[in-house]
Amino acid sequence: MSNNQFRRDPVTGIWSIIIEDEYDVSDLIGHTHVRPGAGSAAKPGMYDTGREAKTAPEIFAIRNDGSQANQPGWTVRVLPMAQPFLQIFGDLNSRGVGLYDVLDGIGAHELVIESPTSGPQMHEMELQQIQDVLLAYRARILDLKRDTRFRYVMVHKNYGEGADDLRFHSHSHIIATPITPARVKIELMNQMEHFKFKERCLFCDIIFQELNDNERIIYQNDKFVVLSPFASRAPFSVWILPKTHETFFEWNNDYRQLAEAVKEILVRINSVLQDPNFVMVLHTGPNMATGADRGYWQTLEKDYHWYIEITPRFRTFTSFEIGSGFQVNVVSPERATQILNTGHLS
Amino acid sequence: MSNNQFRRDPVTGIWSIIIEDEYDVSDLIGHTHVRPGAGSAAKPGMYDTGREAKTAPEIFAIRNDGSQANQPGWTVRVLPMAQPFLQIFGDLNSRGVGLYDVLDGIGAHELVIESPTSGPQMHEMELQQIQDVLLAYRARILDLKRDTRFRYVMVHKNYGEGADDLRFHSHSHIIATPITPARVKIELMNQMEHFKFKERCLFCDIIFQELNDNERIIYQNDKFVVLSPFASRAPFSVWILPKTHETFFEWNNDYRQLAEAVKEILVRINSVLQDPNFVMVLHTGPNMATGADRGYWQTLEKDYHWYIEITPRFRTFTSFEIGSGFQVNVVSPERATQILNTGHLS
Repeated sequence: MSNNQFRRDPVTGIWSIIIEDEYDVSDLIGHTHVRPGAGSAAKPGMYDTGREAKTAPEIFAIRNDGSQANQPGWTVRVLPMAQPFLQIFGDLNSRGVGLYDVLDGIGAHELVIESPTSGPQMHEMELQQIQDVLLAYRARILDLKRDTRFRYVMVHKNYGEGADDLRFHSHSHIIATPITPARVKIELMNQMEHFKFKERCLFCDIIFQELNDNERIIYQNDKFVVLSPFASRAPFSVWILPKTHETFFEWNNDYRQLAEAVKEILVRINSVLQDPNFVMVLHTGPNMATGADRGYWQTLEKDYHWYIEITPRFRTFTSFEIGSGFQVNVVSPERATQILNTGHLS
Repeated sequence: MSNNQFRRDPVTGIWSIIIEDEYDVSDLIGHTHVRPGAGSAAKPGMYDTGREAKTAPEIFAIRNDGSQANQPGWTVRVLPMAQPFLQIFGDLNSRGVGLYDVLDGIGAHELVIESPTSGPQMHEMELQQIQDVLLAYRARILDLKRDTRFRYVMVHKNYGEGADDLRFHSHSHIIATPITPARVKIELMNQMEHFKFKERCLFCDIIFQELNDNERIIYQNDKFVVLSPFASRAPFSVWILPKTHETFFEWNNDYRQLAEAVKEILVRINSVLQDPNFVMVLHTGPNMATGADRGYWQTLEKDYHWYIEITPRFRTFTSFEIGSGFQVNVVSPERATQILNTGHLS
């Protein structure tokens, strides 16, 4: 059992996950870019089809009719993370330690293997394959939200050098946590406040204004729009939004058009910006099954609007940004839009 | 004149500083660790004494009696930043753009040259020199807070490789902004809420509990305590706090003891962790001269407690952390305390 803990910083309200394992501190020395929990033993090809029996048993897979679990015949496969920093079994043991707040390090950490072979990255995949990945996200979110210990299920993807040892096989992470993450909570609060004041969804308002302004629109189809956000926190950061109001990603009913939008923007980022590393985060509504949140997020279905954020990683944060919370962006969203739309860097 | 803008993200409430200058986007390509505003033309020795006439005229200096401005005879010198991303002249032009909030990129950005020669880094300096640096911070904060456009003055230091082109000369940055930074605002809110509930200062409560627990105390003298925060956001992050309640750094009356605390912890971090890069941020109260905040932060003098945060930079943030706001820390604060107190890595 893990003795990891969630601990809340009373000064910022932000929760840290404190790893109690005997991490070898000398591994940190001399480094500026070490990732926590590094050192997974992933090897090239280890998640390729044909090796199913050698991985942990699958939690979920999208499979051809008639194929068996943990056998070939899948397009997307979801596995438990080999060395998770959160443990799936156990009680939360939510408690106070003097004036501090602590929970045990309970959570789920799953790995989505996005294709049966380690060749293609997401921007290179067929639409059907991307759609299957999105459907796997959906299935896992729905299932994890049945666990009333979990207030949030976060899906994210870290592409490129330094991402992690699995970079040779296209993949993403699903993490369910017993606490609503700080950033998500701020979004929930702001969208709720906007609704209180305007009786409209904030993102519906943003989409309406952006489609009218047409200065920051990168792509659209019938159901989805891809735009560069007005206060974009980093160069070429983009949001993919359903055009009509929808609270939960997992309630969506057109993953084909979403796959088109995802593919289009990833292809453009990859070709125009020459294959940058990027982070993709799915922002969906919290888990209402916990009960605890039901009273608080009363207008959630009307005020919250899910979206996908994709942000290339060109740089680290500066001390000014870490200390202040301001984000300095050297490429305006209007310019980023123009560059992604024309394909010309200047 | 700059056309840079502060733009507020309505979804998170976080302000981005959007740089409108024609940044060469091809500079981003292939990089993962570029800093914004890189490319300053700093050269080794350019801020050494004897070259005063070749820098911009000084804003402030701590000088020997009888020495003249912009001549030798100083111990600490403050200069305007050569290529600031905020402009000191102009109105804020606070306005709405549809549903968005925008301000012109107004602010002050000053460079504190921490010693007359480019040799010593802060952990190597005499106490008197460190004290002079702290007194220079104080003088500049007091002066910048006379400008009612500025809601906050942030002092920070970025030490080590990749920090910036000035790394060969010990220095720090002072940035005054017309907006209270998001992270500072959250701290102000949380400390105010704690005071409302308890009628005590949050940090005074933390200090009392930590001195009793004695599991995370790294150093103390009569006036200051250095500790590893309970929910430490990164390995070996520390806070330096005045033991008795004090709202503003600039109201402190014992910079000698503060210099002792700063030197002690920097020496330990440098020797035990083998000269890591670090970020140092001074968290002081906001500028009450703006009037706008006076009504809101009504109990500020009772509820807010200034402190200095020092965080070694061993790594970049993961996509999980960026997306969620959780911080994963592989070294518990108790263990970090033990390591910094014994000098042994395990």
